[in-house]
Amino acid sequence: MSTQNQAADTRQPQILPSFVKGAWWRPEDPQKIADVRDAATGELVARVCTDGIDTAGAVEHARTVGQASLGTLRIHDRALILKQLAQYLGEHKAELYEISYATGATAKDHLIDIDGGIGTLFTFSSKGRRELPNSNVVVDGAVEQLSRDGSFLGEHVYTRLPGVAVQINAFNFPVWGMLEKFAPAFIAGVPTIVKPATPTGYVTEACVRLMLDSGLLPEGSLQLVSGSARDLLDHLDARDHVAFTGSAATARSLRAHSHVQEKGVRFTAETDSLNAAIMAPDVTEDSPEFEAFVKSVVLEITAKAGQKCTAIRRVIVPQEIKPAVITALKERAAQRAVVGDPRDAATTVGPLSSEDQYFEVLRSVRTLIDSGATVELGGPEELSSVPQDGAFFPVTVLSFDDARTPAVHEVEAFGPVTSVLGYSGDVADAVEIAALGGGSLVATVCTHSPELAARFASGIGAYHGRVLFLDRDDARTSTGHGSPVPHLVHGGPGRAGGGEELGGVRAVKHYMQRTAVQGSPDLLTGITGQWHWGAAANTVTREDVANGTGEHPFRKSLQTLRIGDQFVSDLRTVTLEDIQEFAERTGDTFYAHTDEEAAMANPFFPRRVAHGYLLVSWAAGLFVEPAPGPVLANYGLENLRFITPVTYDDAIRVTLTAKKITPRVTDEYGEVAWDARLTNQKDEIVATYDVLTLVAKQWPTPDSGAGQDVA
Amino acid sequence: MSTQNQAADTRQPQILPSFVKGAWWRPEDPQKIADVRDAATGELVARVCTDGIDTAGAVEHARTVGQASLGTLRIHDRALILKQLAQYLGEHKAELYEISYATGATAKDHLIDIDGGIGTLFTFSSKGRRELPNSNVVVDGAVEQLSRDGSFLGEHVYTRLPGVAVQINAFNFPVWGMLEKFAPAFIAGVPTIVKPATPTGYVTEACVRLMLDSGLLPEGSLQLVSGSARDLLDHLDARDHVAFTGSAATARSLRAHSHVQEKGVRFTAETDSLNAAIMAPDVTEDSPEFEAFVKSVVLEITAKAGQKCTAIRRVIVPQEIKPAVITALKERAAQRAVVGDPRDAATTVGPLSSEDQYFEVLRSVRTLIDSGATVELGGPEELSSVPQDGAFFPVTVLSFDDARTPAVHEVEAFGPVTSVLGYSGDVADAVEIAALGGGSLVATVCTHSPELAARFASGIGAYHGRVLFLDRDDARTSTGHGSPVPHLVHGGPGRAGGGEELGGVRAVKHYMQRTAVQGSPDLLTGITGQWHWGAAANTVTREDVANGTGEHPFRKSLQTLRIGDQFVSDLRTVTLEDIQEFAERTGDTFYAHTDEEAAMANPFFPRRVAHGYLLVSWAAGLFVEPAPGPVLANYGLENLRFITPVTYDDAIRVTLTAKKITPRVTDEYGEVAWDARLTNQKDEIVATYDVLTLVAKQWPTPDSGAGQDVA
Repeated sequence: MSTQNQAADTRQPQILPSFVKGAWWRPEDPQKIADVRDAATGELVARVCTDGIDTAGAVEHARTVGQASLGTLRIHDRALILKQLAQYLGEHKAELYEISYATGATAKDHLIDIDGGIGTLFTFSSKGRRELPNSNVVVDGAVEQLSRDGSFLGEHVYTRLPGVAVQINAFNFPVWGMLEKFAPAFIAGVPTIVKPATPTGYVTEACVRLMLDSGLLPEGSLQLVSGSARDLLDHLDARDHVAFTGSAATARSLRAHSHVQEKGVRFTAETDSLNAAIMAPDVTEDSPEFEAFVKSVVLEITAKAGQKCTAIRRVIVPQEIKPAVITALKERAAQRAVVGDPRDAATTVGPLSSEDQYFEVLRSVRTLIDSGATVELGGPEELSSVPQDGAFFPVTVLSFDDARTPAVHEVEAFGPVTSVLGYSGDVADAVEIAALGGGSLVATVCTHSPELAARFASGIGAYHGRVLFLDRDDARTSTGHGSPVPHLVHGGPGRAGGGEELGGVRAVKHYMQRTAVQGSPDLLTGITGQWHWGAAANTVTREDVANGTGEHPFRKSLQTLRIGDQFVSDLRTVTLEDIQEFAERTGDTFYAHTDEEAAMANPFFPRRVAHGYLLVSWAAGLFVEPAPGPVLANYGLENLRFITPVTYDDAIRVTLTAKKITPRVTDEYGEVAWDARLTNQKDEIVATYDVLTLVAKQWPTPDSGAGQDVA
Repeated sequence: MSTQNQAADTRQPQILPSFVKGAWWRPEDPQKIADVRDAATGELVARVCTDGIDTAGAVEHARTVGQASLGTLRIHDRALILKQLAQYLGEHKAELYEISYATGATAKDHLIDIDGGIGTLFTFSSKGRRELPNSNVVVDGAVEQLSRDGSFLGEHVYTRLPGVAVQINAFNFPVWGMLEKFAPAFIAGVPTIVKPATPTGYVTEACVRLMLDSGLLPEGSLQLVSGSARDLLDHLDARDHVAFTGSAATARSLRAHSHVQEKGVRFTAETDSLNAAIMAPDVTEDSPEFEAFVKSVVLEITAKAGQKCTAIRRVIVPQEIKPAVITALKERAAQRAVVGDPRDAATTVGPLSSEDQYFEVLRSVRTLIDSGATVELGGPEELSSVPQDGAFFPVTVLSFDDARTPAVHEVEAFGPVTSVLGYSGDVADAVEIAALGGGSLVATVCTHSPELAARFASGIGAYHGRVLFLDRDDARTSTGHGSPVPHLVHGGPGRAGGGEELGGVRAVKHYMQRTAVQGSPDLLTGITGQWHWGAAANTVTREDVANGTGEHPFRKSLQTLRIGDQFVSDLRTVTLEDIQEFAERTGDTFYAHTDEEAAMANPFFPRRVAHGYLLVSWAAGLFVEPAPGPVLANYGLENLRFITPVTYDDAIRVTLTAKKITPRVTDEYGEVAWDARLTNQKDEIVATYDVLTLVAKQWPTPDSGAGQDVA
């Protein structure tokens, strides 16, 4: 490690500002100032101090102003803002790239942090609008009938937390680390206070500034503490949520805070872990999986100079193939790893983020060597092989003779460092070795065998938040071991912190409380905004429509349609000829429809019965309004269950009720789910299902070409 | 409080045994012995000591023997054992009743604890078999396509924890408290160690003895520590789960244990809380809700002598109606509350469970009075009104002039005690007062207005694990404020412990780890046991079937059917006449099928199109095997989506693939879900859905009358 260039500190940057209580803020009388330097050049890039910051005021501002402004919007509104925000950041990302080089990140690393962060906003925006209702109450699971007569029901709803989402982030992803937590909290309707890590907080500050400049964010929905969070946790309670990313040691100290322990602050941690890449016993040197495995390991220890919580620290391979793996890792690293200035396009491995990190990694590697590691590549003896004027560390591969050496499962060198371990070739042995990590964020299992994949999944699943199965089929298309994707859970048990982030709408629910609600159909309809069978309905019949005394609900646009609007059809009798003809026309000549004796021998049918498809087709005929109207299309059907068989000379009736109305924020129509219930002449339930339709917001539509895609 | 009858301790009971490492155990050299006395008579009923117990051995036994024996079974097997266990306990429940009187429980209280516990086993058994797959990997949510070409997918699976489920229980429900935690852990496949509370642990011991005597439990799946758990937590780590029920103070000390803080032990707590019953502003003295409300409050402070975590401690009513509420509570309590010997049939309120509890409740009531409470009924002045020869406490109603008095939101008198508070009549005011409890297990909101119900749900939802909405419609059928039901979550944020128990299969998942798995369709098919589009398939066509070179998958019973068995139909062309005829026959004359010009004006259709119902009906005709065979019935359909419209002269083909096979453990058939995909002559996707069928385990069936219910 060279001495860094600290001479050129002539231009003193201003203290990095925070954004609290709706305004940018700098300390009036800064005392404890931290200097932040360029990881490659040592140049002073930021000065950080939060002396005198009003954390209590920030929390109160979030709980009042932030909660109120977010509460005027619905889930889809907020999700749409995220998309607009992503577009805005995309237009300004070059500014963030420029600033980010100083953290040691290469141009390729920017794609992970900055583009990755923006992509996460897009994904959450899309999932929020597709998979959550356009309201502020999210229903979880099915309705439970708790009384025989249906007058007392139970179900679960999520409502947003009434407090603030505090995020305390790690230095390695100043943009992605913020956006991946901000997005789900924002959709849930919970205001955020961001506290980035000091070494790279100036990048976060730049991003927050862009977000605020966009003018898209509701007041109080985002605040920034640029520096120590100080007594922030002292002001939190069970209304609030803290999401921490960083070291296991810091997670422990935060978790021990009295307000987490005693006041019910919701605390989750995502800590770096000793992630494994396991080569299954079916892989040989000649199989395509071998190369994919080696590529993945080298990528994971070089991207972000190995400073990823998800980097591969333990390479677990069958004992007999271990020498070949080591040779291949060395060859690939020699080809690919160019350690140098992150601004240089040829560089693939930038410096560590600071001098502190450099010494931390060096210390960890020495501990591993003292514990029995053999240096296969890089290491302390090769420090002179990399540039000396920044926090550069050589790509280092270690190997252990004893795969159960405790240090390799406990000591993390948070840089371009990995260790190779051999196992007996037996799945159980590999599982045991992987489990010694005490819980990890992610593992790669390299295998082309579905059977081995299943055994590994059952064996190591409970120790991991994510497992990537790598083979010839997905090697090229895989998003990679080290990359959390917004669709899937990120986090892991034990050593990895025990938290869960991302995972699509799962993450949104972390900022909401799940509550069981019990009550009558009317009250649960009011609470959830979804019509429940047994609740009040506004019923019209075919006769009402004919007489002009009632309007068919299919004639109502979203302007006038309300849940509970209901159409009850006439009864229509099914004849044996109907069944026979349907069988002939459709080709569905299943014996239950065509052979009296065989039908009677079937355990479920009294004699020949109508096709289920005949029943739902007729139901459509019974409830349809043929003329053009606001109902534009039937795009699907859900939860169809046939309850009572319909035989010839039975009659059916359909009751169709508007159950759930979801106006789209970006289209001139919305989704309406209709509760459909078929009954027979004895009022027995024949079938239940939901009919999914697209319905215009206005009718006649102001623009006849509304919308593009039907699905 | 009288002196208890401690003279009659002539027969010294043996030390209460524990069951560890597969054998009943008593200390060889008991030192610290706790005496447990009958709550009503003071008679010595048990002596408790665990000096020298091998907790490390118990944990190891669970992790090895217990995990192995449970691992030989699948989810449905284990769920079925729970049903058999419930039946066995039901046959022997009189034995438990007899023992339970000594805890102070009345015959009615037995219904809550003992019958309630048995009922919980039945519900979990049924839900486990209906709502979870018959395997050991539970899929969570939809598949995410992570690469454009479909070669890299992601999804989430739950696998069981590899450790032990430790339950540390409260004294008030010695049977239900154990069974409600045991049931979900058992279904998940995780062995349990039960540590009951000392004052009523003899009832738990009797129940565990019955469970073991039943011979139904796999080896190592249940152990019992009858007394102090001592150093049990010192042996736990991230593999293990601790579920605690009891006081907030004990929860804090357990949560602070280093293995919870640093080793990732999964810890959940369910602590008593200051639950509220809120009368909404629409309720008047004359409305039926008024009476229902008063009944509920009196029931909740008298059942189990008010010793329920869920009892109503705060009665929050509009200020102007408060005097009427107090009068009504006093009247009803006078009518209904008969404090006395629990063995006496006339008794409705037994004694508190111990002398300690008596003094604890007395102390709390005095604190509330010192904080400004007015005694409306009972209280310290009326101690002489109840029997003096046991831990009897009078039913006590307090009222506060200032609803925001801190003590009433913090001090819990864990007995037949409640406090009445007035609010302004504004929903926001009631919500604020309720929230002062800092998080509760449950609240009742009494209202007949869906709008008010919605406002209360959004307002107090995040402070509660459960909210019961009480009105005239559900007053008679409600399962009650104080009764957690196995279908719904039990637990609450903040003061209530922050945990979740019950909630149907949600509870099972607490004993499993959710892991994101990424990989190719083949590998994810192997891992989940569910066929994924793009994975290897065993394809046959109509021609193969005709030639005898392939067997239609509908001709395979569960003995030979495998996921991936696939049938690809011929193409069938849809003519305009077909569409017209279908419209006439079904009555579905929607303009998109019948009016060329109007269809073309619709944003989604090119010209007249085939009915979606025509397409799925024809698909059935294309894939059907008409003759009697192992496919017994099509009982439903899921996730139908119409993607590309089909117009006349287009042709359709169906590809049907066995996706998920769920043999029933109690029937001669099982459920098979088939992936159905309709494509057109250009191989564009027309529709996707799952066809749900019942398929015989053997064909021909050994017994033609297999099964009863079709749904």
